[in-house]
Amino acid sequence: MRIAISTGGGDAPGLNAVIRAAVLSARSRGWDVLGSKRGFAGLLGDDEIIPLTTDSVRGIMAHGGTILRTTNRGSPFAYPVLQPDGSYKEIDRSDEIIENARNLGIDALISIGGDGSLSIAQQLVRKGMRIVGVPKTIDNDVAGTVMTFGFDTAVNTAIEAIDKLHTTAESHDRVMVLEVMGRDAGFIALYAGVAGTADVILVPEIPWSMDLVCEKIRSRDAAGRRFSIVVVAEGATLPNGEVGIIGESLPGQLRRVGGVAETIAREIQVRTGKETRSMVLGHLQRGGSPTGYDRLLSTRFGGAAVEAVEAGKWGHMVALQSPHIVTVPIDEVLREPKRVEPDHDIVRTARAVGISFGDRGV
Amino acid sequence: MRIAISTGGGDAPGLNAVIRAAVLSARSRGWDVLGSKRGFAGLLGDDEIIPLTTDSVRGIMAHGGTILRTTNRGSPFAYPVLQPDGSYKEIDRSDEIIENARNLGIDALISIGGDGSLSIAQQLVRKGMRIVGVPKTIDNDVAGTVMTFGFDTAVNTAIEAIDKLHTTAESHDRVMVLEVMGRDAGFIALYAGVAGTADVILVPEIPWSMDLVCEKIRSRDAAGRRFSIVVVAEGATLPNGEVGIIGESLPGQLRRVGGVAETIAREIQVRTGKETRSMVLGHLQRGGSPTGYDRLLSTRFGGAAVEAVEAGKWGHMVALQSPHIVTVPIDEVLREPKRVEPDHDIVRTARAVGISFGDRGV
Amino acid sequence: MRIAISTGGGDAPGLNAVIRAAVLSARSRGWDVLGSKRGFAGLLGDDEIIPLTTDSVRGIMAHGGTILRTTNRGSPFAYPVLQPDGSYKEIDRSDEIIENARNLGIDALISIGGDGSLSIAQQLVRKGMRIVGVPKTIDNDVAGTVMTFGFDTAVNTAIEAIDKLHTTAESHDRVMVLEVMGRDAGFIALYAGVAGTADVILVPEIPWSMDLVCEKIRSRDAAGRRFSIVVVAEGATLPNGEVGIIGESLPGQLRRVGGVAETIAREIQVRTGKETRSMVLGHLQRGGSPTGYDRLLSTRFGGAAVEAVEAGKWGHMVALQSPHIVTVPIDEVLREPKRVEPDHDIVRTARAVGISFGDRGV
Amino acid sequence: MRIAISTGGGDAPGLNAVIRAAVLSARSRGWDVLGSKRGFAGLLGDDEIIPLTTDSVRGIMAHGGTILRTTNRGSPFAYPVLQPDGSYKEIDRSDEIIENARNLGIDALISIGGDGSLSIAQQLVRKGMRIVGVPKTIDNDVAGTVMTFGFDTAVNTAIEAIDKLHTTAESHDRVMVLEVMGRDAGFIALYAGVAGTADVILVPEIPWSMDLVCEKIRSRDAAGRRFSIVVVAEGATLPNGEVGIIGESLPGQLRRVGGVAETIAREIQVRTGKETRSMVLGHLQRGGSPTGYDRLLSTRFGGAAVEAVEAGKWGHMVALQSPHIVTVPIDEVLREPKRVEPDHDIVRTARAVGISFGDRGV
Repeated sequence: MRIAISTGGGDAPGLNAVIRAAVLSARSRGWDVLGSKRGFAGLLGDDEIIPLTTDSVRGIMAHGGTILRTTNRGSPFAYPVLQPDGSYKEIDRSDEIIENARNLGIDALISIGGDGSLSIAQQLVRKGMRIVGVPKTIDNDVAGTVMTFGFDTAVNTAIEAIDKLHTTAESHDRVMVLEVMGRDAGFIALYAGVAGTADVILVPEIPWSMDLVCEKIRSRDAAGRRFSIVVVAEGATLPNGEVGIIGESLPGQLRRVGGVAETIAREIQVRTGKETRSMVLGHLQRGGSPTGYDRLLSTRFGGAAVEAVEAGKWGHMVALQSPHIVTVPIDEVLREPKRVEPDHDIVRTARAVGISFGDRGV
Repeated sequence: MRIAISTGGGDAPGLNAVIRAAVLSARSRGWDVLGSKRGFAGLLGDDEIIPLTTDSVRGIMAHGGTILRTTNRGSPFAYPVLQPDGSYKEIDRSDEIIENARNLGIDALISIGGDGSLSIAQQLVRKGMRIVGVPKTIDNDVAGTVMTFGFDTAVNTAIEAIDKLHTTAESHDRVMVLEVMGRDAGFIALYAGVAGTADVILVPEIPWSMDLVCEKIRSRDAAGRRFSIVVVAEGATLPNGEVGIIGESLPGQLRRVGGVAETIAREIQVRTGKETRSMVLGHLQRGGSPTGYDRLLSTRFGGAAVEAVEAGKWGHMVALQSPHIVTVPIDEVLREPKRVEPDHDIVRTARAVGISFGDRGV
Repeated sequence: MRIAISTGGGDAPGLNAVIRAAVLSARSRGWDVLGSKRGFAGLLGDDEIIPLTTDSVRGIMAHGGTILRTTNRGSPFAYPVLQPDGSYKEIDRSDEIIENARNLGIDALISIGGDGSLSIAQQLVRKGMRIVGVPKTIDNDVAGTVMTFGFDTAVNTAIEAIDKLHTTAESHDRVMVLEVMGRDAGFIALYAGVAGTADVILVPEIPWSMDLVCEKIRSRDAAGRRFSIVVVAEGATLPNGEVGIIGESLPGQLRRVGGVAETIAREIQVRTGKETRSMVLGHLQRGGSPTGYDRLLSTRFGGAAVEAVEAGKWGHMVALQSPHIVTVPIDEVLREPKRVEPDHDIVRTARAVGISFGDRGV
Repeated sequence: MRIAISTGGGDAPGLNAVIRAAVLSARSRGWDVLGSKRGFAGLLGDDEIIPLTTDSVRGIMAHGGTILRTTNRGSPFAYPVLQPDGSYKEIDRSDEIIENARNLGIDALISIGGDGSLSIAQQLVRKGMRIVGVPKTIDNDVAGTVMTFGFDTAVNTAIEAIDKLHTTAESHDRVMVLEVMGRDAGFIALYAGVAGTADVILVPEIPWSMDLVCEKIRSRDAAGRRFSIVVVAEGATLPNGEVGIIGESLPGQLRRVGGVAETIAREIQVRTGKETRSMVLGHLQRGGSPTGYDRLLSTRFGGAAVEAVEAGKWGHMVALQSPHIVTVPIDEVLREPKRVEPDHDIVRTARAVGISFGDRGV
């Protein structure tokens, strides 16, 4: 038996732990393991294919990043290829993957990636490849699994940042706006905001208004709490699709400046008169050593992926359905993404402890 | 509406976060909240009853310990009372609790505690008190809930310790034996051992032998891995109920010395000739600021406990059944404790990545 | 004896530890202690004067920020006062401070602050006030002392950030540019860059060129090190006072965009063709719990400030001249600021281990 | 030019950072570098001599331990050699080192180690070897340098432990006794105790009595502070050289049990009636990733050691005399060790903020 492993999309803490567990589990069964560098690039012949041995994965459990490297480059079914005239054309190179895998004697592939990678994997499965998926999204927005690895680490990184901003905001009577990851789903903002005792949390799933955000800040001020912490997911735009257009009294002055956090910060400062600062947490959320939770979940995913290969679960991905790891068909997973439910107990409790979501919610 | 809150048993990171969320949730409903100091001692009249306001819980989310203090003192149904002759006699003082609660105008009690406290709560419910439980065990061995708060923090503390012992063990070619909490259940040892890449994990649920532990260490040595890390739950005694009796060749020399870690360390050193050290992690596992996971879970428990009071779920405890918080009857919970399942996927994967449980398990 | 304490300028981890040590040391001598809120605002009558007791400072050692709050508002010698016409005029309000202090029975003041606060303190000393200074600058750019508190914490925060960016940069073959504090002095960039194994460090004290920065990145690339980490102090502008003007081939395209990090990142991306990202660490560097080093140094400063008051060292500030705390005249301190010496052993060793300062230095 | 590097004695965080900086600095000069495994064992022919290249030291800055391994085995001048009759005899094997070094073409040696290693180095220098020393002691008790690497990390580890014990002690009204490293010098106990706000600090340099320790705990109790934290250096024995002999009223009951912390804890419990627990921090203090301070200091030492080799400073060690790295003759360093000065400002301030040293000191 010979399997290959690849990692695609943005990196997440725990990738190396998945690789490690998969390699060791496969080796303990006597299987050969290959690594395809930079997602499918290795299998496309555009990058290396490397052997993965027990020695290859020694000491990598606690390391962020991925020893297989990764890429956000497009799908092999629509691969951007440079044309003689300098333009790019999307070419279907999926047959190359299948042929290269056959030539390398690869019996099965463990594809670690997000929605995009899982979708590609599923298309390749339809063309006959034997693939098991491992879900990877720092945003925790993949359906079918209670949790994805990397998320817990990102949340803790965001909480640490909130804790740090907290003391400086309080010392200076400032409003601090922190932008965290979450283009479509507000899980990081929600979890970190609640655990970090933010005053306002803005997520893509709950429509909010600048007026109500400022109302919250003013009411805290009136109660002697002269600072406020706002945590905003990068995708938490205003309902009209536009963030931070200043009203008529200040036409055009602020427009859309910088990211969502900076825009919101300027609005708050103009509207409330309070000194306001913004910060984009950005790539820090993808980096660093995985937390205990993520190390364990990643290891479980890696071990379960090898069991799924053994059981021939092609087109399935491993998933946490507490307290067990199961396999679920990728097709089902892709049907609809996971989002913050506005009436979830976390949101309800957040409101009960006094957090505003910038809406009129009870 | 007036409720009271108490915390009993050993402390766990997240207690203050539960109290905070419960107080804020109750206050947002316009309820009064009282705190009973040191478990039921306050309600017994042996310690203070204090008002809990929004100000009382400000800034305590990230603090370890409990602002209500706690105690391991016995059940009010069999309370150790000092007699004139200097001995202690167990007295049923439960009626005092009920009467005091009535006099204080307490409509309901949120009791945060482990098996012991939950059992007492259930007995008081049978006598007519209106109580909702919040499970607390650093060992994660309460049934009915996927997870208890404090456990994630304890696991991360243990992983940090393993990480630190790792580098020094490797530099000195040593065996290090780390004892973690878990009198009856080996969850901390299992989770921290896997995430910390221990070489041997010993838990109460899986019978093990000194011979096989030493065999593992020797086989690593033979492969050039001249150090080993053993993680042992405090309750992981040998099948015959005795830990670390040295065999006939060394009669009585080592006997039972110190805790389980020290005994195992001496055995390993004598049997393998390798320099071996032990360390008891002890109280460090209960202390410190809760992780993001524990801050969130505790907050959800606190908020859900108030919702359960509102819904009149007497004799129930709040519980995590991912992804939701639910309530479960305490009677059901107490029927059987939660233990590490020897064929759980975590154990299977641990074996697959090369960890020994000191048995002949595949 | 009655003393007052104030904290001015940007906050720094350790402020509370200084306050705590000063209060406890003064109380142990039987002195009264008052706190002036928001720097001199309390003493100006614009904010509160509060009593500081043993209880006031309980549990604050490890907390970031300052319980006395702080402000960046101007000097009392040139205080911005709102005029009827809406403009601000600078008024000398120093006599108010002196009179209020006399009315409050304050015998001496401990003024904790940076260059600005120390300079104000010295002017007040000249007018007869009895003041001892405690130097505070996150940038470590105050002369006369080997180290200022808060700096070690900021450096560790920056190192953590570099560690996190490192793994994600390496996984994606990216260049990451991290902007840290240091308007005039590059100590944070230098210390964190060396300890975090940055590839390029840019500081205000060492003139650098974009060409040489890109040369370093290209030479790493050629050697198979396809990622690079650039750490830049916010004040590390190009010699001509302008950062990141793109050369003639791309006129005006990039100009000065965002902060220094973003500008440099765009330049690198355009010039080298490598995917480049930037991050501004900003306020995170001022926040959080002080490190052990900062907790100890702050405590020593607080204790020594009270000893200096006892010894009547007016116009002096406490300072670390390892291994002792001494007092130095503020006048001397203000004569010239502390800067990174381009031939300091840290710079020499940084170059020797392969770090580029963006210059032709050996 | 060809140099060798060795690490001896107990490991300390930062060893790898010294090795890395020395290797990179030497390679940048075009020198060859060899590593002697396990202290002098490599040079004695008992262990490996390995080449150290730029690749050998990649990514090790933040790793605890030492890639060259280490040992506490005795001096090559009195090396324990197994005799045919099973006994050990001490043999002078120093000539073997000199000869092997010559045969390997080694021009100079960088010896990283504590008092023991430095003393051996100095003896070898007298026999003609060209050696530069780098001081290493987790206890910070080497003279001639303001600080040694590893100490800051150990102190932070101890502070974290104190912080964790603090919350649990307070919740349970307990006394906690924490034993930290420091056989002869109490620096870790002093620094961590002050920064961690311990109530009692016991160090070898300040004679203390059990009576006064208990008096402090009782006076706190009386003031409503019903818990206490005692930090004790492992070498802080009672003046008569015996720790924790219970007085006449309890003859023999407690004797010397376990380590110093356990003995003190039992004494406190018996004498004050307060529930008391002990904890030995042990090997945790040597492990883990070095702090920013230690990463920088180690790197400076490594770079400076290569400069010292270049300058022919045989028989000297590198040292921090803030703000510069200097070289000092090893002979001078060994003349007298560094100890906590009982009238140092840290001790004075510790007393002023209310910490007891178990004596009658003001």
